[in-house]
Amino acid sequence: MMNCFENFRVKPGSKIQLSEIDPSFKHCYDNREEALPETNRMDEQIRTLTYKLYAEHKQSLLICLQGIDASGKDGTIKHVLGATNPQMCTALSFKEPTQEESEHDFLWRYHKVTPGQGHISIFNRSHYESVLIERVHNLVPEKVWSGRYDQINSFESLLTGSNTLVLKFFLYISQNEQLDRFKQRIDDPARQWKISESDYTEAKYWDDYIAAFENMLNRCSTQHAPWFIIPANHKWFRDLAVASIIAEALKSLNPQFPAPSVNIEEIKNKYHKLRES
Amino acid sequence: MMNCFENFRVKPGSKIQLSEIDPSFKHCYDNREEALPETNRMDEQIRTLTYKLYAEHKQSLLICLQGIDASGKDGTIKHVLGATNPQMCTALSFKEPTQEESEHDFLWRYHKVTPGQGHISIFNRSHYESVLIERVHNLVPEKVWSGRYDQINSFESLLTGSNTLVLKFFLYISQNEQLDRFKQRIDDPARQWKISESDYTEAKYWDDYIAAFENMLNRCSTQHAPWFIIPANHKWFRDLAVASIIAEALKSLNPQFPAPSVNIEEIKNKYHKLRES
Repeated sequence: MMNCFENFRVKPGSKIQLSEIDPSFKHCYDNREEALPETNRMDEQIRTLTYKLYAEHKQSLLICLQGIDASGKDGTIKHVLGATNPQMCTALSFKEPTQEESEHDFLWRYHKVTPGQGHISIFNRSHYESVLIERVHNLVPEKVWSGRYDQINSFESLLTGSNTLVLKFFLYISQNEQLDRFKQRIDDPARQWKISESDYTEAKYWDDYIAAFENMLNRCSTQHAPWFIIPANHKWFRDLAVASIIAEALKSLNPQFPAPSVNIEEIKNKYHKLRES
Repeated sequence: MMNCFENFRVKPGSKIQLSEIDPSFKHCYDNREEALPETNRMDEQIRTLTYKLYAEHKQSLLICLQGIDASGKDGTIKHVLGATNPQMCTALSFKEPTQEESEHDFLWRYHKVTPGQGHISIFNRSHYESVLIERVHNLVPEKVWSGRYDQINSFESLLTGSNTLVLKFFLYISQNEQLDRFKQRIDDPARQWKISESDYTEAKYWDDYIAAFENMLNRCSTQHAPWFIIPANHKWFRDLAVASIIAEALKSLNPQFPAPSVNIEEIKNKYHKLRES
């Protein structure tokens, strides 16, 4: 089973071409109902293991979510990571940089909010925007963005060297699926507030984004901070895949409850004295 | 039904004596199973309403949890607020102040992490420690801590004046229940790491803590930032009570999805052009 999702890992030095990947892939599952028991099982494992990670207080997990507009970043957080305890898990989204942020290097605002020991941070969009939107819209010259892949790899290597596992998910949907999701937003009053003009103005940059995504995947998937390409046309399959990969990664960290910081026998005596008083 | 939980609200100017309150109170419910459907219904309401609060992006919610050791602050966060989306809800716990924090006024480190528009922050222990542990252990002179009640009320009034609802829960357990919970920690290898010497050294300050809690409740429950005393000997009743009060408070905020920021008819045309291209 795991091998199925392990296949989504981008091997270092790959030459990924997204056109060769099927965003509607759903492995051996026909539909949501078939996948649900396994998704629930993975959610349960994530809950148990994140609690142990928190108790252990030695290792951290950083999850980065990237994908084109409407690819399901918010939905993934809600469905896969909504189950985690807010005490150990924080989701951050990054909008336009503030004045102070734009007065620093491009990694500064992300570095500030990397997870501490025992914690999980989810980046909803991430430092990779610096080689995506900034590249596609020429917000910085090629000379600048082309140097960032190495800077990102160094940054992530600093994190992984400090016991932070970095997992990066690229949610891959087709252009037709994106349009279908835009249509749903137009038709649903509870979602109309999410529509922005840029949904439509960005559409003409689709091919540029795909090229930028491919570069990101090929240059920044490392052994310790891998990218996973998640076929995300089926939301339920996306949730199952992301949950399975996170559960497996948490298992590999093998978090342990720490040894008691007190002498249990002595504490038993103190307990009995207190009970009698 | 709501009246039951509304009774837990400390009215401004009260003269609460905790000895008159039954920490084992469970209203009309006999056991966990009876309460569960209502608790689940409240959790579902919290999920729906926090999403609307997030979408609306105008109001915020600050939840403060206080209570003696083992009163169930972590458990409340896990069971009641674990259901919320980490994208809109952050839990913070406050340990020993850092050097930088202790070089500022006592509210500084709390003010920094109050929730922004659309967000919920949960304080696991809060600025009230400044009139609890600091008072009980004489960490600051009486002249200092006795001035803090008014300073806290002013601080909270600043927050509520800026569209932040402040809800404060005092989880009230009996000393016997505390000892039972300490015993469970001793007997369960998965919980032994949570035991600290201070569990036992603090026990002799029980009466001092009760006096400090009473002062806090009587002096700092205001109309816009009320304290609720939650009978918390039964964990399931505690969860139901806290969930019900939060759900009711969120309903009273009446969050609304914002109006679309685009002209929906124009967007429909853009959509059709894109679809045809």
